[in-house]
Amino acid sequence: MAKPYVIGIDMGGTNTAFGLVDARGNVIASSSIKTAKHSDINDYIDELYEAITRILEENNAVGKVQGIGIGAPNSSYYTGMIEDTANLPWPCPIPLAQLITDKFGIQCIVTNDANAAAIGEMTYGAARGMKDFIMITLGTGVGSGIVVNGQMVYGHDGFAGELGHVIMKRTNGRMCGCGRCGCLEAYCSANGVARTAREFLEIRKEDSLLRSIPIDEITSKDVYDCAIQDDALAKEIFEYTGNILGEALADFCTFSSPEAFILFGGLTKSGELIMKPVRESYDRNILRNFKGKTKIILSEMKDADAAILGASALGWEAKD
Amino acid sequence: MAKPYVIGIDMGGTNTAFGLVDARGNVIASSSIKTAKHSDINDYIDELYEAITRILEENNAVGKVQGIGIGAPNSSYYTGMIEDTANLPWPCPIPLAQLITDKFGIQCIVTNDANAAAIGEMTYGAARGMKDFIMITLGTGVGSGIVVNGQMVYGHDGFAGELGHVIMKRTNGRMCGCGRCGCLEAYCSANGVARTAREFLEIRKEDSLLRSIPIDEITSKDVYDCAIQDDALAKEIFEYTGNILGEALADFCTFSSPEAFILFGGLTKSGELIMKPVRESYDRNILRNFKGKTKIILSEMKDADAAILGASALGWEAKD
Repeated sequence: MAKPYVIGIDMGGTNTAFGLVDARGNVIASSSIKTAKHSDINDYIDELYEAITRILEENNAVGKVQGIGIGAPNSSYYTGMIEDTANLPWPCPIPLAQLITDKFGIQCIVTNDANAAAIGEMTYGAARGMKDFIMITLGTGVGSGIVVNGQMVYGHDGFAGELGHVIMKRTNGRMCGCGRCGCLEAYCSANGVARTAREFLEIRKEDSLLRSIPIDEITSKDVYDCAIQDDALAKEIFEYTGNILGEALADFCTFSSPEAFILFGGLTKSGELIMKPVRESYDRNILRNFKGKTKIILSEMKDADAAILGASALGWEAKD
Repeated sequence: MAKPYVIGIDMGGTNTAFGLVDARGNVIASSSIKTAKHSDINDYIDELYEAITRILEENNAVGKVQGIGIGAPNSSYYTGMIEDTANLPWPCPIPLAQLITDKFGIQCIVTNDANAAAIGEMTYGAARGMKDFIMITLGTGVGSGIVVNGQMVYGHDGFAGELGHVIMKRTNGRMCGCGRCGCLEAYCSANGVARTAREFLEIRKEDSLLRSIPIDEITSKDVYDCAIQDDALAKEIFEYTGNILGEALADFCTFSSPEAFILFGGLTKSGELIMKPVRESYDRNILRNFKGKTKIILSEMKDADAAILGASALGWEAKD
């Protein structure tokens, strides 16, 4: 019989958040540690083990955990390995699932953070009951988790769903962190919005509230703050961003014709500032066959818990 | 118990080809009728019924057919309807599966022609044993059939897999038959190659064997004929085409990370003239995570039978 709890771990470049989750998707308790504190991955695993064991003891959950799910960058669901560690302090490949399974004596399942978010949305959020949807995470970068026929799309190697790296500008595209140019992520991430602000401020002459901020320090949050004060340039930055995202979603629709696109992450907090141009651009760009069929909606996951919940949902797949 | 035969029908704008197929993928007999001869769809169905019944009688197969599979343009696997009939003489929507099922008394299953090709490849061709692959059909247009986790990707409405209509040129893109600009199909179809030839001949000054052909009559076959005679401009047309297709495949890989891309259709007869630039462009454009993992190969289906075989494979899904 399945045990009553799972553990969800969200491993980011800076912090690793984790929580104890019950079958109804309540986060019973959660905490976090610094990811990059340890130069040896084993010391990191040890600290994680101690912190999680403390939570289990405090909540009378020792021996009652079905599985551990982790969302980690550039990781494969099939092998449980992190294969590329640009944002992590350890050499790759890292056999993360195996290290955790061995340390905890509980099966651990790994996937990338956007896939974990999609699983969370399907289990607890806006995608409940949907068999075909695409999750787009708009954070520091742009990630995606794709569900087809009710199943996560992992691809033949476990790395499918890297839609942040579809090329949107083939000519004079911005350099992306992946080493190529013109990726969606270079435009529609929080960093992308800040870069657009810098480009616009350099090229344009008009006044803007953004000009009161040192140009190298402008963040997407600043653009939002100015836009809600009705700053024309700031609003145009959101329109530019939303336009590219709408073009991208229209292309993605030709692939799997999803019931919905579910947008998640910091940028979606800008609400209609970003959603309106996304929808307008999508409608302008969508192939006739698909017109009016696919919803573009916001995640229903609470921010603080979303990553932990999404990862934890993987834990239910663990075998005893 | 399943019956020993299926019928495959390939419905094109000009001809409708059909055949009787056994469980090992042998086309026992085949024939064709003109699609556009009848202004009433019911007369078309009647002629199809007569022609197929003749084949069944001649091969002692009456009452031994498990199901009928049809590949038809713009059709939905879920509803069995043709929803857009730009290339057909009848008003849409057309309840094709229902009309055939009623007439023949045998369950009929419909999907678009590229999906049928993918099913054929999975059942009888180069994709046997593959759980994740993408079929690209390079014919008059560009179609696609996507398989994820061993299942066809139909999407929530049955119309998924329209990768010929991903936008490859967002600025000054060629007008596509779909009414938008810059689609893959406008460049990498047989028509696209002919258009590239016309563009190159107008812009360029250099000599070419292609200049001996009236410019409006140039076909992709002419470009091939000149290229194998070592005509520099003709070879460059294939390089240009292959370069765009390689860029597209690199983008598609970020979606479902397939084990292979399988290319099919008239353009693939050009062999290395097109495959070499496709592979080179793909390697230049692919995201690091996916480098060297995905094969780009040619279909193993014999041309004459491929469409019928692919459609017929759907027939095995029919219920008694």
